[in-house]
Amino acid sequence: MDEVEQVAKMHTTRVGVLGGGQLGQMLALAAQRLGVPVTILDPAGMDSPAGRVSGRAVCGSFTDPAKIAELAALVDVITVEIEHVDAEALARVGASCDVKIHPSPATIALIQDKLLQKQHLLKAAAARQESIPMGDFCETADVEAVLSAGERWGYPLMLKARKGAYDGRGNAVVASASDASSAFSSLSAGGVVQLYAERWCPFSKELAVMVVRDVHGRTAAYPTVETVQRDSMCHTVVAPANVSAAMRAEAMRVASAAIATMEGAGIFGVELFAMPDGAVLLNEIAPRPHNSGHYTMDACHVSQFENHLRAVVQLPLGSCEMKVGAAAMLNVIGAADGTIEATLQPIARAIRLREASVHWYGKSPPKPKRKMGHINVTGSDGKRVAQLLEALEGSSDPAARSPIVGVIMGSDSDLPTMRAAAEVLTEFDVPFELTIVSAHRTPQRLYEYAASAEDRGIRTIIAGAGGAAHLPGMVAAITPLPVIGVPVKTSTLSGNDSLLSIVQMPRGVPVATVAIGNAANAGLLAVRMLGMADVQLRQKMQDFMRRQETEVLQKATKLEQGGWESYQS
Amino acid sequence: MDEVEQVAKMHTTRVGVLGGGQLGQMLALAAQRLGVPVTILDPAGMDSPAGRVSGRAVCGSFTDPAKIAELAALVDVITVEIEHVDAEALARVGASCDVKIHPSPATIALIQDKLLQKQHLLKAAAARQESIPMGDFCETADVEAVLSAGERWGYPLMLKARKGAYDGRGNAVVASASDASSAFSSLSAGGVVQLYAERWCPFSKELAVMVVRDVHGRTAAYPTVETVQRDSMCHTVVAPANVSAAMRAEAMRVASAAIATMEGAGIFGVELFAMPDGAVLLNEIAPRPHNSGHYTMDACHVSQFENHLRAVVQLPLGSCEMKVGAAAMLNVIGAADGTIEATLQPIARAIRLREASVHWYGKSPPKPKRKMGHINVTGSDGKRVAQLLEALEGSSDPAARSPIVGVIMGSDSDLPTMRAAAEVLTEFDVPFELTIVSAHRTPQRLYEYAASAEDRGIRTIIAGAGGAAHLPGMVAAITPLPVIGVPVKTSTLSGNDSLLSIVQMPRGVPVATVAIGNAANAGLLAVRMLGMADVQLRQKMQDFMRRQETEVLQKATKLEQGGWESYQS
Repeated sequence: MDEVEQVAKMHTTRVGVLGGGQLGQMLALAAQRLGVPVTILDPAGMDSPAGRVSGRAVCGSFTDPAKIAELAALVDVITVEIEHVDAEALARVGASCDVKIHPSPATIALIQDKLLQKQHLLKAAAARQESIPMGDFCETADVEAVLSAGERWGYPLMLKARKGAYDGRGNAVVASASDASSAFSSLSAGGVVQLYAERWCPFSKELAVMVVRDVHGRTAAYPTVETVQRDSMCHTVVAPANVSAAMRAEAMRVASAAIATMEGAGIFGVELFAMPDGAVLLNEIAPRPHNSGHYTMDACHVSQFENHLRAVVQLPLGSCEMKVGAAAMLNVIGAADGTIEATLQPIARAIRLREASVHWYGKSPPKPKRKMGHINVTGSDGKRVAQLLEALEGSSDPAARSPIVGVIMGSDSDLPTMRAAAEVLTEFDVPFELTIVSAHRTPQRLYEYAASAEDRGIRTIIAGAGGAAHLPGMVAAITPLPVIGVPVKTSTLSGNDSLLSIVQMPRGVPVATVAIGNAANAGLLAVRMLGMADVQLRQKMQDFMRRQETEVLQKATKLEQGGWESYQS
Repeated sequence: MDEVEQVAKMHTTRVGVLGGGQLGQMLALAAQRLGVPVTILDPAGMDSPAGRVSGRAVCGSFTDPAKIAELAALVDVITVEIEHVDAEALARVGASCDVKIHPSPATIALIQDKLLQKQHLLKAAAARQESIPMGDFCETADVEAVLSAGERWGYPLMLKARKGAYDGRGNAVVASASDASSAFSSLSAGGVVQLYAERWCPFSKELAVMVVRDVHGRTAAYPTVETVQRDSMCHTVVAPANVSAAMRAEAMRVASAAIATMEGAGIFGVELFAMPDGAVLLNEIAPRPHNSGHYTMDACHVSQFENHLRAVVQLPLGSCEMKVGAAAMLNVIGAADGTIEATLQPIARAIRLREASVHWYGKSPPKPKRKMGHINVTGSDGKRVAQLLEALEGSSDPAARSPIVGVIMGSDSDLPTMRAAAEVLTEFDVPFELTIVSAHRTPQRLYEYAASAEDRGIRTIIAGAGGAAHLPGMVAAITPLPVIGVPVKTSTLSGNDSLLSIVQMPRGVPVATVAIGNAANAGLLAVRMLGMADVQLRQKMQDFMRRQETEVLQKATKLEQGGWESYQS
């Protein structure tokens, strides 16, 4: 009964959330589905995006100690949807009331100050003898410190407010020593705001990893995603990130290691930089659900919001795996002209897109640069979701299908044989590309074709060649995709040369070889392979096989009834 | 701007829902995500499951004309989450207020009376010259009519209340003529309740199709699912249904044809019977979201609830396609002992299951036989979701993985060759089965193995044989899955016989042939094929190829540095 008792807690553990924006709203939606009672603290109370969904709210500021205490009296656990809360007040409430706070006020305070956050990670990594790589940074109490950082690192460098910055606000690029003074005064607002400097980081991509941590300190990480900023705001997120698997794994390792050093339970958003040399540097952490994890709502078994709830009410953490091949998210930002019409443009496209899910936060009226909603798209692979993202932005036709089978041949003299594969793929409505790649006359093209096939969305390659037929085997040596070899019939050895050149591959590099000259079977084999993960295509193959059977049975009847003497096929 | 204006309506069209149970709740959740303002009419108002989520409610009965009018004054469209509403009152409200009603009161009234529903479908099908097959039925105003039906059709037969029946209540089996009188009096409650009779329908499975209809009468259908009843209540739903593709298509056709004859917009649940002879008969219709469509929340791009909203606020209908290979739903029913502990058992299992999503309606306390929540599971294929369903019921280990590759050979003398395939699959952690299937000595076993492979969850078959090697080709002739052939080396012809027997397949039936004796490559080819839809497996293949490369490079270095004279491999 232990497990059942644990689960029963999700209906009795009252959760309070500081902040009633869209993150709180999506948390409340997940809570409603699970049956977790949630109360929101927000100035707009029941009229906040989150309050409208949770059905329970306290009106007041999430930075007001009295209001936090009022919320604490109503709930068993307090959590946050925004890190700009009064961490000290939160700590006092935690000490004086019978309420748990996740993540811990200490963690929130630590993360609020980006300089302390980085210093903590540096120290914790050293103590644990673990690597949490970060770019260089230093405290800059005055302009002198900025100039000295510039001398050490060169320019440009980043000057940042230690606290309260978001969506690019509170950051400035110091282009040269002569800019240091003005950047320092404008950001520090006459010494009121504390600053620190970061060495310029020439990253190739921005990555993010959502990490959920339970009360026992166990963590689980969602896949590494790529975030694209526009005007200093998150514009799109692509999951998984289109970087090497090694970099994705390293980002997940770094993010998990960083969150392991924090106190308290909940979900954390970890932003990282992918460097051109393959390294991954931690940028910063958010102690709450994060824009880069919105895709999980439609792409994962358990969303970031549900996992946050599970963590704070002490349910077992849920799976962070994706249930679809790939996903992406587009933020719907208040249009520059502030009109609802311009703002809704991407949603009008999404509503017509098969693979899109619309999320609208119900903030009205739209304000320029305000996050009004988001759109998730899901698909079988990164290629498809990239196309869907373009369609949402009005720059591509979602119906245009990119090829998933590559048909290549060593010479145009192979085309009369290879066209049968193209005909089969056309018949089964499988998008393909067809071209000439000669192993012996265009070896570099061969290498590039095979090496790029996977990233271009190709799932299998049909390669036809005759004589010393090296094309299929060489392609198979370069790509991890399955390669189907078609031995083309030759005049000297009737294709025996082609067959043996293709089929007799050494251990380690297989080529799926079909009969001499039988490119139709190569097409059919590609369809069967694609059908392994596509029940509709498998059904089409069944239908094809049934038609073949019927044709032969009809011929049998004709032969039986008409007699063999007068039979004509 | 037309499309944007249309989309903008979703934030301004106020929707009223008669009924505040779990269907209304899930409708309200979908509405909150899209930003559609929803008001619930329910006796419990804001405390009903739906009212707690929508944040807007009118307290009162959904059968009270005054309350319906009160709701009508607050909204632009009225819809229902339950069909047992006062359709006449609804029609009067529609006539006197400026409010649209979807589906139309006439449709609701028609569906409320199961006899009229069936008579309407019979007539409409005839008028449209379309087939909407149903079992025999007739009006039974008195016991005489029941007996006369029994004479026509034989016993047993079903006696049903025309109105108000649900979850098996209002139905009785008349086992023989002598039962007719008592069944009639008990069901008709002294003539108060009107009855009709249905011929006994010896169905093999129960199916359901959710159909959404827009205001212009256009319909879209979700995949055909299989519903399993227990104690006259929906127990589980499996999507897609495990019947032939032809039957799934016919069920979708019949359901769509039936809904095309109805008035008004919205989602409809259509229950059907799968007959042993392959026919599909329509059973009955619900004019609202339906238990058999709950799986769409986690398995489809657009859920039944969102599509219902889209229909009633006149947005374009969304996709009804599944975004995962298969899905299933388990209802969480109030335990017989009425305790929360017993009721929560399946949820306690679900929360530990990677592929499960928990939905809890927040009704407390649990009552026996009351629907308290449901659990959706998603997976790559029907085999996997069946296993997950069993795990939810505590009767299987979800971690046990069923084989996805079949390794077969004509004789145990082939094992020394074929074990290399098993070793590769083990190395890549791909679950497989391995056995002997001889084409020539066990032809029936060959047929059964190949014919059942797809349904058993096998995705590709590796077949090894020597001499007149017919096994791979014969298996490929029976299954739509890709078959990999391994020519086993023979003493007489060194495997040339095996190779040509396997690779030289006729047009129409491909076998992916690897080198003579090279079963390791067959294993690697299977991994590459599975990797087409599995990025992690593709990555493992990349890693394997890199290790191969490193090994050769190390040997090259050793050869270069140590010299060829003393080189030992």
